[in-house]
Amino acid sequence: MRRLSRAIHLPAASAKLLARGTTPTTTTTLFARGNSSGLPPQTAERYAIARGKFQVLSQQHLDHFRRLLPSSGSVLTAEEDGLDGYNVDWLKTVRGQSRVVLKPSTTEEVSAILRYCSEHSLAVCPQGGNTGLVGGSVPVFDEIVLSMSRMDKIISVDEISGTLVCEAGCILERISDHLAEKGLRMPLDLGAKGSCQLGGNISTNAGGLRLLRYGSLHGSILGAEFVMADGTVIDVLSEMRKDNTGYDLKQLIVGSEGTLGVVTKLSFACPPKPASEAVALLACDSFEDVLCLFREARQGLAEILSAFEFYDAASAGVAREHLGLSSPLLRDDGTESPFYVLVETGGSNARHDEEKVHAFLERMLSTGRVQNGTMATEPSKIKALWATRERITEALLHDGYVYKYDVSLPLRDLYGAVEATRERLAGHPGVTRVVGFGHVGDGNLHLNITSPQYEEAIADLLEPWLWEQVAAARGSISAEHGVGFKKRDVLGYSKSPEALSLMRQLKDTMDPKGILNPYKTVP
Amino acid sequence: MRRLSRAIHLPAASAKLLARGTTPTTTTTLFARGNSSGLPPQTAERYAIARGKFQVLSQQHLDHFRRLLPSSGSVLTAEEDGLDGYNVDWLKTVRGQSRVVLKPSTTEEVSAILRYCSEHSLAVCPQGGNTGLVGGSVPVFDEIVLSMSRMDKIISVDEISGTLVCEAGCILERISDHLAEKGLRMPLDLGAKGSCQLGGNISTNAGGLRLLRYGSLHGSILGAEFVMADGTVIDVLSEMRKDNTGYDLKQLIVGSEGTLGVVTKLSFACPPKPASEAVALLACDSFEDVLCLFREARQGLAEILSAFEFYDAASAGVAREHLGLSSPLLRDDGTESPFYVLVETGGSNARHDEEKVHAFLERMLSTGRVQNGTMATEPSKIKALWATRERITEALLHDGYVYKYDVSLPLRDLYGAVEATRERLAGHPGVTRVVGFGHVGDGNLHLNITSPQYEEAIADLLEPWLWEQVAAARGSISAEHGVGFKKRDVLGYSKSPEALSLMRQLKDTMDPKGILNPYKTVP
Ligand SMILES: Cc1cc2nc3c(=O)[nH]c(=O)nc-3n(C[C@H](O)[C@H](O)[C@H](O)COP(=O)(O)OP(=O)(O)OC[C@H]3O[C@@H](n4cnc5c(N)ncnc54)[C@H](O)[C@@H]3O)c2cc1C
Ligand SMILES: Cc1cc2nc3c(=O)[nH]c(=O)nc-3n(C[C@H](O)[C@H](O)[C@H](O)COP(=O)(O)OP(=O)(O)OC[C@H]3O[C@@H](n4cnc5c(N)ncnc54)[C@H](O)[C@@H]3O)c2cc1C
Repeated sequence: MRRLSRAIHLPAASAKLLARGTTPTTTTTLFARGNSSGLPPQTAERYAIARGKFQVLSQQHLDHFRRLLPSSGSVLTAEEDGLDGYNVDWLKTVRGQSRVVLKPSTTEEVSAILRYCSEHSLAVCPQGGNTGLVGGSVPVFDEIVLSMSRMDKIISVDEISGTLVCEAGCILERISDHLAEKGLRMPLDLGAKGSCQLGGNISTNAGGLRLLRYGSLHGSILGAEFVMADGTVIDVLSEMRKDNTGYDLKQLIVGSEGTLGVVTKLSFACPPKPASEAVALLACDSFEDVLCLFREARQGLAEILSAFEFYDAASAGVAREHLGLSSPLLRDDGTESPFYVLVETGGSNARHDEEKVHAFLERMLSTGRVQNGTMATEPSKIKALWATRERITEALLHDGYVYKYDVSLPLRDLYGAVEATRERLAGHPGVTRVVGFGHVGDGNLHLNITSPQYEEAIADLLEPWLWEQVAAARGSISAEHGVGFKKRDVLGYSKSPEALSLMRQLKDTMDPKGILNPYKTVP
Repeated sequence: MRRLSRAIHLPAASAKLLARGTTPTTTTTLFARGNSSGLPPQTAERYAIARGKFQVLSQQHLDHFRRLLPSSGSVLTAEEDGLDGYNVDWLKTVRGQSRVVLKPSTTEEVSAILRYCSEHSLAVCPQGGNTGLVGGSVPVFDEIVLSMSRMDKIISVDEISGTLVCEAGCILERISDHLAEKGLRMPLDLGAKGSCQLGGNISTNAGGLRLLRYGSLHGSILGAEFVMADGTVIDVLSEMRKDNTGYDLKQLIVGSEGTLGVVTKLSFACPPKPASEAVALLACDSFEDVLCLFREARQGLAEILSAFEFYDAASAGVAREHLGLSSPLLRDDGTESPFYVLVETGGSNARHDEEKVHAFLERMLSTGRVQNGTMATEPSKIKALWATRERITEALLHDGYVYKYDVSLPLRDLYGAVEATRERLAGHPGVTRVVGFGHVGDGNLHLNITSPQYEEAIADLLEPWLWEQVAAARGSISAEHGVGFKKRDVLGYSKSPEALSLMRQLKDTMDPKGILNPYKTVP
């Protein structure tokens, strides 16, 4: 290891670029990057699906909504406001045709809207920060967009028990910052934190960077308030760590992608913020080395390990090319290392943590599993080390179209899927690149293929081939991004007919008219 | 602190008595303690409830079951085998009248049984280790007992990913021991571990002693296979940490107490077994001191804290009186301390852990919050320190009848509930004692009142008074034990009518004939 310095050495100019959390915070910013003709084709045109038997929005409906939501800016229409930012997804791969966006400020307003929509058979698409990656957060046809962005109040934070209660429209980063001031930590962290909302996180059961340490949202959520399709408010907003009074209804909502109810309030158990933090970025020659590092980290860093992420040379390349993020660990000849690993630790005693991290790094160095490394303990430098990993998703967008896969696989097969994909696409002229990165600790690979624009020939090479590989390995075809619009028809690769039928029964029970986020999640 | 020795000093003779995990491992053992006339009255007699419109077991049904389950000992009948052990609960407070116990060995057998029962409208009571404390695991009338004890195979343990896959009838302690041999730990631990089954733990969403560290079972469960009332097998037995392919069906089963399906297989994420463990038993003068200790432990022990439990002098008293477990921390005058705290730590570096624990104890000592303490790091001595805390539930049984409450309350109100109960019952001649103990870290109080036999007058003083107190504090009337038969009618103190109605809808969807564990959980 040539540079195991305690700080990352970067030219001052790139510091701002590298600052963590600089993901575009609004969809507007994002659209500014493309041009207006760069909008994707309408979903209803590109994919052959039939519109459900819902009412079409009328002037009378609109008048009613204006009465329900009298405060200014709560009812946006296509004519007056231009709704592209609400109709197009973050990836710019799907586009709906909604004519109206409703922005309720209270649970009562959400309830009144849904009661009315239910009575009048109007379809609704709940929307949080619109950072979802499976086309779940935008309409397919003319569904009414129910934007949760105005429900962004923090209700309470109990510093002793670590309990957060807030509205569902709160943006993740704001909550994380607020908790940090109180010595607490949000158990969830992800690249889209500057825009995504807690309601969206819960609705997608987002995994993110620290699942390894704090577990899934099914474990961290303490309570929820949600509104069912007919307007009924289910208040199970417990603040207690334990509550076994019957079926755990909030769990139904976790990962249901707006198809079973609209989440209005949430409570979470938040762990103490670690007193000491450290991040190491390490360069490895092979994925086998990455896995070996992981096993050692699980053992040697154990209770202080809070993230273990990897990205490959191609991922580093796209971040450098489009966002100017260059690796502090380039080889002497200026090329990328085949693999980078980010190890994050958080503990209560800086001296103990340091000893553990150093012992771990020394052990790894002596085995030759690590070629190069750098480490940081200062917040700003930690952010800088995270930058490439966090912004790969964003960088890929600049290539044009992204064929996006988010799979769970047994650890030993994790990177094999990337290599097999490269082989399969080798020589195909339309392909810009194939990159692999993700959450090693969770067995979760993000496999992305880009091309200047969508090409059916590439899609056909990838699917169903990739789904078959994942199914054969008993993996999951959607590890953390969910199903949304894009994966609904391939769920069968991960779920049995009986399980799908039970999903359908639950949907029919909770939303008998099917007005909540139709065409999504449930086959 | 007078004795902060590194080991607990106990006469050799009491060592065996104190060994952890000596809870009776079969109901038979338990019954041997009482006499046969000591059986509780039949539930159907004591409580005025009407039998559901189910078929009564006929010879023809029995013949069919014998054909379905040909292996010997799989079909037990009241006539031939005496079914008291299956009809009476662990607390000996409820008694059913089942005529037959079925013991399937495979998922296919469970499925065939339920399909048949569904077709013939025969009610079924799924039973695990029968250690449940709310009367959920035994029949109310003549439901068929479906005992899962033969489905006890460990299917696989992946040492690297920490994934356990096993059948639902596996006994918790056996699994914990098996995992320990592989360097892993079961994230769940509780006093009934010698008898309770993982399927029962999942069905009750058991909390236990280490929830503080590893979170709830909603987070640790990775997958499940369960059989619905009509015999349909739902296989969502994923071994992946992340799988967002649609609604998370396994979560429905967690805490559903045998009313939505019979769990046949499970997979769990198991953390590494800590390389170093320590337990400190501390004596405090007030509950305020206990809370102060907890706050300090959360901060100073942080990531290595794995349990924080308390019990009061009355709890220690009952364990001494009936089980001969005397406290190593008696005061000089031989009396119990008002409160005892058990702090358990587990980490990866013995030296670091020790330093943290010592610093914590020293700080507590210097503030005068701790009056006396003792500590252990050796497994057998750790077990000994746990003994009283783990066996309070068992000891209380010897008093006669136990009025058992398991509530969540805001931390500051936790012990106030015990004091208020003592005040309320003061002078009532039938009351033997009022004890309080539980999981401080989870805000979970076990409040128990005993009397030689059940007395309606005592029950009337306690209920609904206590439910009202808990509801007023926005607590939970059942923190971890569940609803079962005993708390079904008071769920309204913790759940809104809308939430109860949604529970009913889910039940009707998944079990339209209501054959699975009727009279339980769902009002
Ligand atoms: C740069 C980037 C990085 C990402 N990294 C990760 C990652 O590491 N891990 C991960 O799991 N995901 C990741 N994601 C995807 C992830 O799903 C989202 O970022 C996030 O969880 C969605 O939140 P949102 O508020 O943007 O929801 P949206 O995108 O608005 O909606 C997502 C789904 O939830 C529904 N929904 C939203 N709010 C509500 C509500 N209040 N009630 C009911 N339904 C609602 C929508 O209908 C939709 O189906 C990433 C996305 C981006 C763009
Ligand atoms: C000494 C003692 C200490 C305890 N400590 C704790 C504690 O610390 N924390 C805690 O949470 N609980 C505790 N409990 C209660 C706890 O609920 C049980 O010990 C345990 O979780 C139940 O497991 P079991 O196999 O005995 O289930 P049972 O008692 O047999 O059944 C419990 C419920 O689950 C259902 N069930 C069981 N198996 C299945 C299956 N395979 N499929 C579907 N339904 C099923 C039954 O129908 C019943 O409704 C304790 C109990 C005792 C006696």
